[in-house]
Amino acid sequence: MDHFYGPGRNHLFVPGPVNIPEPVIRAMNRNNEDYRSPAVPALTKTLLEDVKKIFKTTTGTPFMIPTTGTGAWESALTNTLSPGDRIVSFLIGQFSLLWIDQQQRLNFNVDVVESEWGQGANLDILASKLAADTAHTIKAICIVHNETATGVTNNLAKVRKILDEYRHPALFLVDGVSSIAALDFRMDEWGIDVALTGSQKALSLPTGIGIVCASPKALEASKTAKSVRVFFDWKDYLKFYNLGTFWPYTPSIQLLYGLRVALDLLFEEGLDNVIARHSRLGKATRLAVEAWGLKNCTQKEEWVSDTVTAVVVPPYIDSSEIVRRAWKRYNLSLGLGLNKVAGKVFRIGHLGNLNELQLLGCLAGVEMILKDVGYPVKLGSGVAAACAYLQNNIPLIPSRI
Amino acid sequence: MDHFYGPGRNHLFVPGPVNIPEPVIRAMNRNNEDYRSPAVPALTKTLLEDVKKIFKTTTGTPFMIPTTGTGAWESALTNTLSPGDRIVSFLIGQFSLLWIDQQQRLNFNVDVVESEWGQGANLDILASKLAADTAHTIKAICIVHNETATGVTNNLAKVRKILDEYRHPALFLVDGVSSIAALDFRMDEWGIDVALTGSQKALSLPTGIGIVCASPKALEASKTAKSVRVFFDWKDYLKFYNLGTFWPYTPSIQLLYGLRVALDLLFEEGLDNVIARHSRLGKATRLAVEAWGLKNCTQKEEWVSDTVTAVVVPPYIDSSEIVRRAWKRYNLSLGLGLNKVAGKVFRIGHLGNLNELQLLGCLAGVEMILKDVGYPVKLGSGVAAACAYLQNNIPLIPSRI
Amino acid sequence: MDHFYGPGRNHLFVPGPVNIPEPVIRAMNRNNEDYRSPAVPALTKTLLEDVKKIFKTTTGTPFMIPTTGTGAWESALTNTLSPGDRIVSFLIGQFSLLWIDQQQRLNFNVDVVESEWGQGANLDILASKLAADTAHTIKAICIVHNETATGVTNNLAKVRKILDEYRHPALFLVDGVSSIAALDFRMDEWGIDVALTGSQKALSLPTGIGIVCASPKALEASKTAKSVRVFFDWKDYLKFYNLGTFWPYTPSIQLLYGLRVALDLLFEEGLDNVIARHSRLGKATRLAVEAWGLKNCTQKEEWVSDTVTAVVVPPYIDSSEIVRRAWKRYNLSLGLGLNKVAGKVFRIGHLGNLNELQLLGCLAGVEMILKDVGYPVKLGSGVAAACAYLQNNIPLIPSRI
Amino acid sequence: MDHFYGPGRNHLFVPGPVNIPEPVIRAMNRNNEDYRSPAVPALTKTLLEDVKKIFKTTTGTPFMIPTTGTGAWESALTNTLSPGDRIVSFLIGQFSLLWIDQQQRLNFNVDVVESEWGQGANLDILASKLAADTAHTIKAICIVHNETATGVTNNLAKVRKILDEYRHPALFLVDGVSSIAALDFRMDEWGIDVALTGSQKALSLPTGIGIVCASPKALEASKTAKSVRVFFDWKDYLKFYNLGTFWPYTPSIQLLYGLRVALDLLFEEGLDNVIARHSRLGKATRLAVEAWGLKNCTQKEEWVSDTVTAVVVPPYIDSSEIVRRAWKRYNLSLGLGLNKVAGKVFRIGHLGNLNELQLLGCLAGVEMILKDVGYPVKLGSGVAAACAYLQNNIPLIPSRI
Repeated sequence: MDHFYGPGRNHLFVPGPVNIPEPVIRAMNRNNEDYRSPAVPALTKTLLEDVKKIFKTTTGTPFMIPTTGTGAWESALTNTLSPGDRIVSFLIGQFSLLWIDQQQRLNFNVDVVESEWGQGANLDILASKLAADTAHTIKAICIVHNETATGVTNNLAKVRKILDEYRHPALFLVDGVSSIAALDFRMDEWGIDVALTGSQKALSLPTGIGIVCASPKALEASKTAKSVRVFFDWKDYLKFYNLGTFWPYTPSIQLLYGLRVALDLLFEEGLDNVIARHSRLGKATRLAVEAWGLKNCTQKEEWVSDTVTAVVVPPYIDSSEIVRRAWKRYNLSLGLGLNKVAGKVFRIGHLGNLNELQLLGCLAGVEMILKDVGYPVKLGSGVAAACAYLQNNIPLIPSRI
Repeated sequence: MDHFYGPGRNHLFVPGPVNIPEPVIRAMNRNNEDYRSPAVPALTKTLLEDVKKIFKTTTGTPFMIPTTGTGAWESALTNTLSPGDRIVSFLIGQFSLLWIDQQQRLNFNVDVVESEWGQGANLDILASKLAADTAHTIKAICIVHNETATGVTNNLAKVRKILDEYRHPALFLVDGVSSIAALDFRMDEWGIDVALTGSQKALSLPTGIGIVCASPKALEASKTAKSVRVFFDWKDYLKFYNLGTFWPYTPSIQLLYGLRVALDLLFEEGLDNVIARHSRLGKATRLAVEAWGLKNCTQKEEWVSDTVTAVVVPPYIDSSEIVRRAWKRYNLSLGLGLNKVAGKVFRIGHLGNLNELQLLGCLAGVEMILKDVGYPVKLGSGVAAACAYLQNNIPLIPSRI
Repeated sequence: MDHFYGPGRNHLFVPGPVNIPEPVIRAMNRNNEDYRSPAVPALTKTLLEDVKKIFKTTTGTPFMIPTTGTGAWESALTNTLSPGDRIVSFLIGQFSLLWIDQQQRLNFNVDVVESEWGQGANLDILASKLAADTAHTIKAICIVHNETATGVTNNLAKVRKILDEYRHPALFLVDGVSSIAALDFRMDEWGIDVALTGSQKALSLPTGIGIVCASPKALEASKTAKSVRVFFDWKDYLKFYNLGTFWPYTPSIQLLYGLRVALDLLFEEGLDNVIARHSRLGKATRLAVEAWGLKNCTQKEEWVSDTVTAVVVPPYIDSSEIVRRAWKRYNLSLGLGLNKVAGKVFRIGHLGNLNELQLLGCLAGVEMILKDVGYPVKLGSGVAAACAYLQNNIPLIPSRI
Repeated sequence: MDHFYGPGRNHLFVPGPVNIPEPVIRAMNRNNEDYRSPAVPALTKTLLEDVKKIFKTTTGTPFMIPTTGTGAWESALTNTLSPGDRIVSFLIGQFSLLWIDQQQRLNFNVDVVESEWGQGANLDILASKLAADTAHTIKAICIVHNETATGVTNNLAKVRKILDEYRHPALFLVDGVSSIAALDFRMDEWGIDVALTGSQKALSLPTGIGIVCASPKALEASKTAKSVRVFFDWKDYLKFYNLGTFWPYTPSIQLLYGLRVALDLLFEEGLDNVIARHSRLGKATRLAVEAWGLKNCTQKEEWVSDTVTAVVVPPYIDSSEIVRRAWKRYNLSLGLGLNKVAGKVFRIGHLGNLNELQLLGCLAGVEMILKDVGYPVKLGSGVAAACAYLQNNIPLIPSRI
């Protein structure tokens, strides 16, 4: 089934699933094991402890659920809320849209705050809603930290500030799928009640673990939340945490060993260095886009995303054709424009285990494709802009100093 | 984290997760890929077509959900039933118990038919309930084909026969987690409406795909079922099936390639040969148990399981000690006794990718452990009994004839 | 021992060992096997047949020796020549130098024809030597097809032409280590008597197989050659070829399965396409070097190599520093200058399983390093030049059309 | 090319290549690397230091040559001896025969001391030869520590004792291919001058490294030895050892990382525990053979081998048929009888990374095959005998205590 084999490496620049580090691929290259032997709980214990570090929490309780980000969303919502609960949710792109769709289908009373795609969450409206909600009918604020469809990063610190300003007790639920372990994320400091991510994003693993982290307040809420849940119920996990066997049902042995190495690599590089690397790659990408004379889908600098860049193409070009050619001719995987921006943007993911020269190869490829599809790009211009910035900013690889 | 390394191979004889064939491990040894490229849908299409063969269905619709067996259960129930619906469910061991717990927490009206652990489902009671239910208040029959905790296989053909006898329209939902692709299973012939399994069982993959297969009648029921569901909703899959992109959310690329090879290997060996191999290994195990003078937890021959054997130990022995020693001294992983039979039975899984000599090594190990813990076993007796049977029954390996 | 881990992929641009395709890594991910079972000879038979295709020979006899290129050299020489035999050998760089050193230590009478490093073999001198050698004292011509140290490709067709012109019976021995399966190579057409390569070069495998291919004339010569040899003796192979078991001593099972896939991939891409891809990458690299204002070590266009480019740095720069920084800062592995050109050149290998965007990433990296070390390169210039050429010349990936 | 796939694990019981531990397979699952980067020398340095431990030497100098055991033989001989040198060599089976063949082809004057196959080296003759050799014409004693064809282990301590008795300066060259890291082996204590093994034996790696360890006396001899050698010349290694880059030609990156883990696992288990495990498995195998009523090819207890057992079959049985059936029906790989004992013995390898239950599975298989081919074995008898011994002797797995 490698019917689509092309020579050389595939250049994977979608914003997930992302490139897996070779040591992680090695660690997962193994037979199954009995998850009730002493080995798997011993391993799990270290994972639960260490995974908190990528959320920057010491008080949170993590759940590593065998599911995807969509399942992690469902776990966050159903464990903390009851049907009919009013929640404020921000619609700024395809993934926030899908989460809102889930919220509605789970029978919450969703107060949707919509922005134009390319803009961040409208926090002024949040402020006004909280101001008006003296009765505290709003039970939760749901926000996607980084909207992967448009390359927009929301300001979570500001959300917390607004909540504090109005002393509003609403739960603060955050989709950190394309941000946690890549962007600055501070669960405790920002008073986030539930944060979640998926293994195939910044952790650079295969799909298969939805990681949900709950604050003490969220755990407390889960005791009375009336949403029906079984597979996603935190209670079953907590029961097995107490038993020290950790797993209410069978985990993927391979992903556990993979996660161990993925965390080790993040810590070896240094979480701050990882975030700085994403910042560097994001900046380099945006400089290239600018040099090409194209626009970033993200409308303001304050929202730019360091994990994905959505590039707007001129009206006479179909962005899907760019993605198609990238794959067919250059063995390059780019992200499509989704829904409202289908055909209008293509996306360069610069998330996860990636380095500068990989990105520069991608940018050079994009330049050629742009020319292929008739856009009058100056070849080398984007790479030159990116290099000019990177050349002064790439540090030595820590392990090689 | 290979802190528990022992020389040689681990002998994995729990009834799941089971041994992964080396070609499958190889196939999964890969980087992530863009699941929106043409390659992944092309692969998925072959999987959806071929996976039906292990259910023996041509009319069913399979869903390969990124979840475990517990999630597959939830998908089967919530897509076909509404809260308050009356269902008949058979409690015969730990896994049927857990499914019933889920059914109750999902707010169905569960009519539990309990048997002593070690016995099969009481189908006489089913008959009487159906006879009495002229109003058709029973919406579904839920049954675990093979109860992994006690090594009991239920007679699904008979369930169908009873349903037909009373011309009862109840849906027929089957947990085939430790049976499908290992025991005789005929979804279409037996009129099963939803059947499900998990990738880490007879398919011999890592954990991570819950495969649920729905009959046309089940699909029809899903249109009106009122149980709240999003992640497990078949509707989202069907939408993407129609689009030809197949995935409502990110699948595990590695598991898809692994499943491709796992199916290829099953078909290369021949599904009937696979079932015969399980039958052979099951029989050999039971003959060994008999030779040791121990009892099978399964109380009657009609219920014996060819995928797992639960062995009852004498009252003066703690079966958990057997499992502990197996792991600590012999690098052998056996199954614990669960719940009601904790300490009383240990389990030998003979499920999935396994051959005769592997089993014989396990049986020899069990003999030594039995002696270790003070049971007066005659060393070699079980192996002798198993060999006497196997020696006349092992066919040539098809590819080596 | 991954003490030197850096984020993202290592960019491997040394001219060997080169990048291994992922399907090959997968194929080698396996336990040992009994090489006397029917499986390994069956596999070996296909390899011996197919490996001839990369030499473009139908009459040659290949030997896959568990050794490196150095061992392959020794096998070529000792099986065809006797101590004291006069051979003409061309010294044009470090690898031809090492081969000559071996020839001398093996007690041949080596007539060395030296060229300045950066030039090709002086074939005029060959002509004059052959012209003078009416007594046919010259028993063999030894030539390195592609000198990896300087990026010089010799003209083998012309060597044959000269031999024919003088109707000289000397054996024609060719080191094709960095050319076979990457450059145009025609063993039969050019009347080559022994050609050899190593698995870690264009075949893109790990080190471990030295492949030597002998013409009927070379096989005939081996019957009387008096050089002492055992491990490298073709006779032992021929004996086992006749037996159909193929191996006089234990081969690497992993490399055999890897070679199977490596050949399959070459044939799937098409050997001509593979050669065209190398030509494309070589040309792109040379255009970049030119754009940087640097000189190619290769002194004339007729000798330029499509598998490696040796770049001459200005006298005020130490080329070793470029290689060091590439590795420490950019996770890029470049080739050092060797011996006479140490400190003066660095080398970009563009050999084996590689595609355009990988190369462009490397070129962008080299630009930044050049700037780092104080060379006034215009960032983006080399990439622009390479892209301008590539953009018009990259074909669709065959499997994706 | 997995055309011969059978369900479950292959049971690999040939005396090489042997089973590779899963952590080693994982470690080798990687792309190539530049062996001139700082990483590979750093790794190599630890290997050269640690590999000495398996030879039990502190004064020896190891060479890790990209070759097989046959190449290691050649390296041992050609570096220490000159053509015409008189050596005493013991012929006791197929592998000592092959080594002697090599010695003769390398033009040494070989004084062959032959024993009946199944007997050890005749050391009385050695004593008489040394006694007679007052002129010290004997330059070396060559002996295979463990003859893999017959399962005979020679007494090296006694060889040393005899040499010392006669104060004879002959070099003491030992083939430790199927003994080092499995049997008691003491290079320094026994005054061995060159000892060698192959990676695919007790080290449990793929084929590809011939490890040769030279005493100071051997190194000294190499300075004057006149045998022609290049690829196998220690001098080239020593030159690169001094440079700190270690490799005169390209090593297999994968094998280096694999060797690192292989050594780590040996040290983690404890070299003495490893030897004890081999002793345990050897003893268990011999007890089974005895219980079957069959004879060990090894004629006296003093010579029995703990790494391979050659089992003599009754004259009416063709041992090759046993090996054939083992593979075709039981996925079991046994060793053939070679040369003089072809058809008369089959061999059970119990070398390398192996544990008790693996061996017991193999023994059960052999019992069934014996019955298949018409030998009146009592099924279970061998396993019973092995278990009776093992049950009292298997220690806890160190890491699991």
